Amino acid sequence: MKKLVLAYSGGLDTSYCAKFLSEEGYEVHAVSVNTGGFSKDEIKNIEKKALQLGVSSYISIDAVKSFYDKVVKYLIFGNILKNNTYPLSVSAERIVQALEIIIYAKKIGAKYIAHGSTGAGNDQVRFDMIFQVLAPNIKIITPIRDLKLSRQDEIEYLKSKGVDMSWQKAKYSINKGLWGTSVGGAETLTSHLPLPEEAYPSQLKNNGSQKIKLSFEKGELVAIDGKNDSPVNNIEKLNAIASQFAIGRDIHVGDTIIGIKGRVGFEAAAPLIIIKSHHTLEKHVLTKWQQQHKEYLANWYGMLLHEGQYLDEVMRNIEAFLEDSQKHVSGDVYVTLHPYRFTIDGIQSKHDLMNASFGSYGEMNKGWTATEAKGFIKILSNSAKIHQAVNKVNYD
Amino acid sequence: MKKLVLAYSGGLDTSYCAKFLSEEGYEVHAVSVNTGGFSKDEIKNIEKKALQLGVSSYISIDAVKSFYDKVVKYLIFGNILKNNTYPLSVSAERIVQALEIIIYAKKIGAKYIAHGSTGAGNDQVRFDMIFQVLAPNIKIITPIRDLKLSRQDEIEYLKSKGVDMSWQKAKYSINKGLWGTSVGGAETLTSHLPLPEEAYPSQLKNNGSQKIKLSFEKGELVAIDGKNDSPVNNIEKLNAIASQFAIGRDIHVGDTIIGIKGRVGFEAAAPLIIIKSHHTLEKHVLTKWQQQHKEYLANWYGMLLHEGQYLDEVMRNIEAFLEDSQKHVSGDVYVTLHPYRFTIDGIQSKHDLMNASFGSYGEMNKGWTATEAKGFIKILSNSAKIHQAVNKVNYD
Amino acid sequence: MKKLVLAYSGGLDTSYCAKFLSEEGYEVHAVSVNTGGFSKDEIKNIEKKALQLGVSSYISIDAVKSFYDKVVKYLIFGNILKNNTYPLSVSAERIVQALEIIIYAKKIGAKYIAHGSTGAGNDQVRFDMIFQVLAPNIKIITPIRDLKLSRQDEIEYLKSKGVDMSWQKAKYSINKGLWGTSVGGAETLTSHLPLPEEAYPSQLKNNGSQKIKLSFEKGELVAIDGKNDSPVNNIEKLNAIASQFAIGRDIHVGDTIIGIKGRVGFEAAAPLIIIKSHHTLEKHVLTKWQQQHKEYLANWYGMLLHEGQYLDEVMRNIEAFLEDSQKHVSGDVYVTLHPYRFTIDGIQSKHDLMNASFGSYGEMNKGWTATEAKGFIKILSNSAKIHQAVNKVNYD
Amino acid sequence: MKKLVLAYSGGLDTSYCAKFLSEEGYEVHAVSVNTGGFSKDEIKNIEKKALQLGVSSYISIDAVKSFYDKVVKYLIFGNILKNNTYPLSVSAERIVQALEIIIYAKKIGAKYIAHGSTGAGNDQVRFDMIFQVLAPNIKIITPIRDLKLSRQDEIEYLKSKGVDMSWQKAKYSINKGLWGTSVGGAETLTSHLPLPEEAYPSQLKNNGSQKIKLSFEKGELVAIDGKNDSPVNNIEKLNAIASQFAIGRDIHVGDTIIGIKGRVGFEAAAPLIIIKSHHTLEKHVLTKWQQQHKEYLANWYGMLLHEGQYLDEVMRNIEAFLEDSQKHVSGDVYVTLHPYRFTIDGIQSKHDLMNASFGSYGEMNKGWTATEAKGFIKILSNSAKIHQAVNKVNYD
Repeated sequence: MKKLVLAYSGGLDTSYCAKFLSEEGYEVHAVSVNTGGFSKDEIKNIEKKALQLGVSSYISIDAVKSFYDKVVKYLIFGNILKNNTYPLSVSAERIVQALEIIIYAKKIGAKYIAHGSTGAGNDQVRFDMIFQVLAPNIKIITPIRDLKLSRQDEIEYLKSKGVDMSWQKAKYSINKGLWGTSVGGAETLTSHLPLPEEAYPSQLKNNGSQKIKLSFEKGELVAIDGKNDSPVNNIEKLNAIASQFAIGRDIHVGDTIIGIKGRVGFEAAAPLIIIKSHHTLEKHVLTKWQQQHKEYLANWYGMLLHEGQYLDEVMRNIEAFLEDSQKHVSGDVYVTLHPYRFTIDGIQSKHDLMNASFGSYGEMNKGWTATEAKGFIKILSNSAKIHQAVNKVNYD
Repeated sequence: MKKLVLAYSGGLDTSYCAKFLSEEGYEVHAVSVNTGGFSKDEIKNIEKKALQLGVSSYISIDAVKSFYDKVVKYLIFGNILKNNTYPLSVSAERIVQALEIIIYAKKIGAKYIAHGSTGAGNDQVRFDMIFQVLAPNIKIITPIRDLKLSRQDEIEYLKSKGVDMSWQKAKYSINKGLWGTSVGGAETLTSHLPLPEEAYPSQLKNNGSQKIKLSFEKGELVAIDGKNDSPVNNIEKLNAIASQFAIGRDIHVGDTIIGIKGRVGFEAAAPLIIIKSHHTLEKHVLTKWQQQHKEYLANWYGMLLHEGQYLDEVMRNIEAFLEDSQKHVSGDVYVTLHPYRFTIDGIQSKHDLMNASFGSYGEMNKGWTATEAKGFIKILSNSAKIHQAVNKVNYD
Repeated sequence: MKKLVLAYSGGLDTSYCAKFLSEEGYEVHAVSVNTGGFSKDEIKNIEKKALQLGVSSYISIDAVKSFYDKVVKYLIFGNILKNNTYPLSVSAERIVQALEIIIYAKKIGAKYIAHGSTGAGNDQVRFDMIFQVLAPNIKIITPIRDLKLSRQDEIEYLKSKGVDMSWQKAKYSINKGLWGTSVGGAETLTSHLPLPEEAYPSQLKNNGSQKIKLSFEKGELVAIDGKNDSPVNNIEKLNAIASQFAIGRDIHVGDTIIGIKGRVGFEAAAPLIIIKSHHTLEKHVLTKWQQQHKEYLANWYGMLLHEGQYLDEVMRNIEAFLEDSQKHVSGDVYVTLHPYRFTIDGIQSKHDLMNASFGSYGEMNKGWTATEAKGFIKILSNSAKIHQAVNKVNYD
Repeated sequence: MKKLVLAYSGGLDTSYCAKFLSEEGYEVHAVSVNTGGFSKDEIKNIEKKALQLGVSSYISIDAVKSFYDKVVKYLIFGNILKNNTYPLSVSAERIVQALEIIIYAKKIGAKYIAHGSTGAGNDQVRFDMIFQVLAPNIKIITPIRDLKLSRQDEIEYLKSKGVDMSWQKAKYSINKGLWGTSVGGAETLTSHLPLPEEAYPSQLKNNGSQKIKLSFEKGELVAIDGKNDSPVNNIEKLNAIASQFAIGRDIHVGDTIIGIKGRVGFEAAAPLIIIKSHHTLEKHVLTKWQQQHKEYLANWYGMLLHEGQYLDEVMRNIEAFLEDSQKHVSGDVYVTLHPYRFTIDGIQSKHDLMNASFGSYGEMNKGWTATEAKGFIKILSNSAKIHQAVNKVNYD
């Protein structure tokens, strides 16, 4: 029989795939890869649905740690916010989901992999590319993309096959994971409308304010308020705290891999707080040139990750740079949470390069004399001075 | 007699300079260059002080428009926030102040220029470099840097010369201009303390929320809520509105030109709202590559401006790029102001590249078939596919 | 009848297209766009062939000046050598050829455009992209790509239709244009074999050496040995001189748009001499930062041009930067031609920033004192000094 | 007594320093750091001179391997040619010399370090910066920079102290090391004159041609013509062979750290051949993005090294990237040496990504269909197509 692994989420599209592919004679092994979005109950529910649809097997792969180790860690090292806004929540997950599915498909000897992406988005590219590169002999099956069915078509097909589940379309499509939740809806299909308050999964519950201390060790979040835990757990804990303040909402407008512009809302309390905290710590402990070139590379890391190019070898080279740059990124960051916003209050680090013993900015100069400062400026002016003497540009 | 132009602000340091240099036999012509920080009353007050100190003449130069045309415009075109935070409020002003002072000094035939900078900051570099490059024959005099006097020394000297003004040291040193206000104090000399509420010049006065519409034409802010005005006036108007919400506060930690780290608070309601609005509009109307390379150049524009390299010819070349990139950056941006924060709600532009008629992200594909999408992905995978086939990298 | 414009070169592939498309009921209007590769005799020959094949009309468009104005000029401004080697001879031509074909197709009201590219190269991408973007309603027809015919198949088809021309396959496929000649053959399909001497169109005829003077005005080659002429004519003249020395041969290994690596020989005497001359002049007249950022942008200009992205708006923005950077790139460059190589001997320019009156490198310091130099170095060391004091890195 | 380490070369300037500083009461410990420029006989000669001048001790430190490991290796990994020309021969040496001197000074407990640099060049900056950063408590003494003596003054001083050596000024000042030889003379102080044939240390001795095979392993030159040896030995061997062909001469025009332009001739046969060979190998084995970002970082590595910023932590981060990028840079490069020039003929590598089994550029497409290629191009055109439909830019 034709062994097939189906990336299964429990939604209508992949449920259709489960049934349709079983009917088409595939031995369907449904897999959901959890990158932080599913609770145990949700997973049980997904499993139940899958089995009801008649798949041969179902498995939930816990990929949260793998997600952190392979991608999230570097997104933090690089302070990566696509277009200065979006923590790449979904883009990053897809990569790790694809990697895990390939490992599983190879393990069980599947000859086919199916996923439920349409032909209009980035996910098809991310999935297909990783599948094709890592398993060129496994055939990719994408019924939703190929058949262009409407929701109604899908529901009717399932009914006709005796599957009678309720498929109410949520007003907002939500994708939740360790590194943030994306929110799409009627508004995000326009350019001018914001998402309404109720579209966001986390609602404001805390109207006060709260001070927290985030501790980093070589760029990783190792403690909150002095309590050590794994970075993954710390991200989840921080998210639980900060979501109460409805922190981390925004709308990302970006260029898709397929050349059209897309707009998506998101909520990413922990990612935004961690990135801003980590970035502030870096401003204290990294040199100017480290920050400059790290930003260049990190932007590219984000761009290529977003575009599904995770397997390009340059990504490993950039990771080597990022890892090396974190040697001294250790210390505490003080943050205050408020409704809908947070402030970074300051940092403390033994690697802090802003250190009064070397002189304070704008204060009286201790480390050097006026004469030395003048010598510095004089020679620093040489290039422009010569250019001006030669070319006599008018700046009036 | 030795004709000297003194960059005069009315503060203790430059007042000391005014007196001291007069006593040293210079004919002191005091100048203050207004880049948006001074009201008419304040200027009158500065003039009064200057004359009391016995300067030969005083003049206030209105450089707000020149500031906008020469620098601020490009900071907006480039969405420039140093270290992703600071709109370069002060750095940018100093450049234009220096340019104006040189023009004035040449006009009156001065042989000397004096300023009150210490030897520990960026301002000395910005002033000196521009003076040296544009007027290599004018000698620069900097008593504060050279003599390293304490405030008490200065006050006593002035008293001894019969100048009896009150020189209370403000708890926070404030520098105000069109493009933002910087705030320094005891806290900013540490790494871990935030500025207290009262340190910021604008206090929260509006606890509600307010929707506004910003209209851009080729990158410039030409109207607020449909009312056309000059960009300079619009910046000032927007600042007046948004300051009531205490918007635009943050702390910048950065690398000074002299190699030490510096930390400074700032309040820049209009600059932050304008930059985020302009940037969002650009995400809709510029191509991916325009955004990518514009960001690279704009970061450098900010870096070089910050470091006093405004006269490097590359700045003109970057300005040419930025100007050219704004051809289609026209449209309206919808913003909501809240206490301490604002949200960008959406945009409307006839140049919007996110245009449903070409297909919507993630929806069913209209512009191309599943077969075409698969062809795209297949060929896009070629490079990584070959690399993997040749090198068999392990990603498990 | 179905009006079609065919990009016609006179070779077997496009001759097949001419016949085949005529037979298929198209009204075939053959066009060859001359970007510098064809002599008048060759064009007459191409015309004769086209008419023999039964096309409705033939026209040769002279696009040499357009090629220079739209592309070559910027390749010189940017000193663009792909992978530090290849002047982008062919990539650049294709763009202008496509632009001219579209203008012509629109002029005569054609509903179809045909070209002879295969599905394995870059040219199909360059042609198709420009056609699709500028004329989305014109249908693109590509028989060679679609039918995958062998040369033998094509020849037999033509014979069967009564076309009896000789179609000897040249041992080396040559593409000649204003900006260089590419050479492909059995060797360039391997990684390890160089092209033999006889593969190159220009053979060594001058065993001596010759000194020439190239004069640039705002980055453009305006005179050779003091004789003024248009840049296009100067490129052709220089090529005639330098080809006698067999200068400008190399092999380019590059990444194609479709993700595979490609290898191609080329001969580009004038382009290489002009770029190296122009670049040397720039080293004397541009500031460090101009050179740095120009190189970044120029590399991207080359990359995007190579990949057929000429119509991306960022290309116009980069052109604005490049144009602006050439304000002072005027002067003479002294070159000596030798068999197979040339040397840049020196330059003379009134904009030369290497100017003894400001001090000579490594000689005794005139423009500043030892004390000033020491002040400069001391403050320049601050950043690393603080980093080392804080982090105590071991460099032994 | 005041223990001092003097960077001693045997030339007039450092000989003056040796005598002068001894007379001034310092206990002078002369050191020469050999980075590949000195033969055993030359070192013996330098030692003899030093002792004649009355220094307390002399030592020659062999730093060739340290030079390769700390710097040269990365210059090769990065294919670094400053301004596309100069292999940074001297800049690179100075760094390692300074590092070795510091180690030695600390070992013997010196309180002073002296060097013979003038105040007009880069070397003072490179030496002083490394000394100040790594040994802030050791005082730097620079008599030549401070006293601005003429050669005649120095010679007379030495005579007056009974030192009677011959100090003929060479017509060309030569600095030789493992990574190339710099040549300065009257011509390099002009912009327009080339160096004459006789200025170059290696003269043409071989008028024929010679084929060689260079083997790289993870970016390092491990064998020549199949004979394994250490990279350092291979560089020296290759230089001996290629110098006979007078290969590797050129003139570098560059920006000094102190803002003036400088011009210097050089001869660097092995460096140029190795870099071009390594670069060609990389074009075959690295992905497009690896090459793109490696070039960005490598240019910066060269820039910062040139400017004495070797100790900036970003240099370690870049080294991490470069090292990681060399994983597959293994294979053979075929080179032919000719008088004054060389050609890279081809490469062979098991990591070669140009691999006929994945399709050959421009040939008939094997790996994908015409339909797939058209799908690829269609979607690749989306962005420009939308931009053009929206903005209707005129390209005629």
